[in-house]
Amino acid sequence: MDGYLVTDVNNVYYFTEFLDIPGAALCLVVPVEGEATLFVSTLSETAANIEAKGCIVKQVKTGEKLVDKAVEEIKRLKFKYFGFDKVAVSTYLKFLEELKDTKFEEKTGVCYDLRRVKDAEEVALIRKAARLTDIGVNAAVEAVKPGIREYEVAAEAEYAMRLKGSSGVAFETIVASGVRSAYPHGLCTDKIIREGEFVTIDLGAMYRGYRCDITRTIVVGKPSRKQQELFNLVLNAQKLGIKSIHAGIKGRDVDGIVREMMIKAGYGDYFIHGLGHGVGLEIHEPPSLSQASEDTLVEGNVVTVEPGVYLPKFGGVRIEDTVLVLKDRAERFTKAPKKMTP
Amino acid sequence: MDGYLVTDVNNVYYFTEFLDIPGAALCLVVPVEGEATLFVSTLSETAANIEAKGCIVKQVKTGEKLVDKAVEEIKRLKFKYFGFDKVAVSTYLKFLEELKDTKFEEKTGVCYDLRRVKDAEEVALIRKAARLTDIGVNAAVEAVKPGIREYEVAAEAEYAMRLKGSSGVAFETIVASGVRSAYPHGLCTDKIIREGEFVTIDLGAMYRGYRCDITRTIVVGKPSRKQQELFNLVLNAQKLGIKSIHAGIKGRDVDGIVREMMIKAGYGDYFIHGLGHGVGLEIHEPPSLSQASEDTLVEGNVVTVEPGVYLPKFGGVRIEDTVLVLKDRAERFTKAPKKMTP
Repeated sequence: MDGYLVTDVNNVYYFTEFLDIPGAALCLVVPVEGEATLFVSTLSETAANIEAKGCIVKQVKTGEKLVDKAVEEIKRLKFKYFGFDKVAVSTYLKFLEELKDTKFEEKTGVCYDLRRVKDAEEVALIRKAARLTDIGVNAAVEAVKPGIREYEVAAEAEYAMRLKGSSGVAFETIVASGVRSAYPHGLCTDKIIREGEFVTIDLGAMYRGYRCDITRTIVVGKPSRKQQELFNLVLNAQKLGIKSIHAGIKGRDVDGIVREMMIKAGYGDYFIHGLGHGVGLEIHEPPSLSQASEDTLVEGNVVTVEPGVYLPKFGGVRIEDTVLVLKDRAERFTKAPKKMTP
Repeated sequence: MDGYLVTDVNNVYYFTEFLDIPGAALCLVVPVEGEATLFVSTLSETAANIEAKGCIVKQVKTGEKLVDKAVEEIKRLKFKYFGFDKVAVSTYLKFLEELKDTKFEEKTGVCYDLRRVKDAEEVALIRKAARLTDIGVNAAVEAVKPGIREYEVAAEAEYAMRLKGSSGVAFETIVASGVRSAYPHGLCTDKIIREGEFVTIDLGAMYRGYRCDITRTIVVGKPSRKQQELFNLVLNAQKLGIKSIHAGIKGRDVDGIVREMMIKAGYGDYFIHGLGHGVGLEIHEPPSLSQASEDTLVEGNVVTVEPGVYLPKFGGVRIEDTVLVLKDRAERFTKAPKKMTP
């Protein structure tokens, strides 16, 4: 390739340090040699001029189209073969029409292959997001009591994180209680939390675009024997998962080690998702820890370790930390206590 | 077309009432005749089975690919020509390879043309989101005082909305003070708010997937004459914008009426964005009020009216309401006071 086109807000931030709002229409045209050009809307021009590094900032005026600007720049640079992170099919067809002598391909992996290995500066930002995430989950655990609504617990967690400097949530907060704790993506409802229920709290803070992810499951009041059994299984599985991580191991194998423990305990069919996922500028990014993963972990990967068991009509337990992959071990970023009854 | 493929989470919710998490991999294959099929991950299956209406729910197991499931279903249904809302270029190329006797096209407008006209149920949900949005902006205005940080103001606003039942924010909250109020997309920083500064607060609540949008600008302490002049101009422009709206008027013309007032006042060059945008399941959706708009407003559209003036190195003012387009007028959903010095 002699060029690359970046259209994703997070990728543009990764390369230029300018973070636009989610879904903003902007693009960075990067020649292998010479200076890159960032095209932004009039809304973002002032901020981009101050923040964007290593590129020329140009404005897309009202009435002009971003795709036309990109085509024009690509023609000017005479790219023979360029990659892009993602574009709409209509944009792709426009390229086919306008850039007849140019080859181009979706090469999403180019950005993810860089982003999956975090440098020291990124690690520091995720570490900061992890401190805020701990504050959030601790506030949530403290708020849980019989009679409170799920969204009220989320409110306390998000407020605590925001007040300490989180720039919003890393993803939509999950507070799933009772039978709802068996939905891995249960979000929050106005359901009132009752004595004896599982409550799964899954949330994350964001700091300068970098995210973190944690899950804790607690029981309100005195746990039953079955709740105790499930909790201990998932906690041990999660510890085993973290212990298994080091540079060089395959994502599939870390998942496999934990899955084997679950299967032996008779809960294999109820562990219905992968063990973990990469975290960074997005909440889900490479590498992945699952049976479908083709990734091998390397130093600087940041991944979640989050086994879960979900029993329909009973409830579920998930415990999750975000960890940094080191040469011979994993370092936990998130440090909130993992107690069933706080 | 004899079929349509829906992959966007909001569009799937619109058609089935099942709202998955943002960015979830799922798709709805809709034949013109016969039942639609919704493919979801194992993570979402339980919730989809309970919530999704008017379709069969099928699971995409770990290791299976969503695109393969979609191709298989399209082959089974023998579509001759189908549209889709959006797919990755790699998915499009897979369709070209696998579906040689089928025609298919990006037809994003199909969904937006339905979504841009809100029915009574949708209006009720946006009205509820508007009540929560008013609560949020009032809490923010109340929190502003010299010495507080921008993100602390956001924390108070988001907490107030959440506690009353908002399911998170409609978009990342903006609290932009001093010279930062001249950045239309300024988000929040740790900047301390000082006496005499403009503070622009732009936020929204979300209720069952539906969003709302409001902006208020205030001055901390006693406004200068220039601040007063800018504020009054933008307030009058915003009132004029709302007054100009009725079914049958073009989005370009509503923008034009307000823009003319700004130009006459000598601030045309500083009103650097369109007058407004549609709001619903997304924070920016059709129809648009701007010089580039080709939309004509109809009853049931929900749009923002948000003129702004941005003076670099001085500050900016933006005032915004979300309104419902009626036959002969606009109904304001957001009702928080518009006072420069509360």
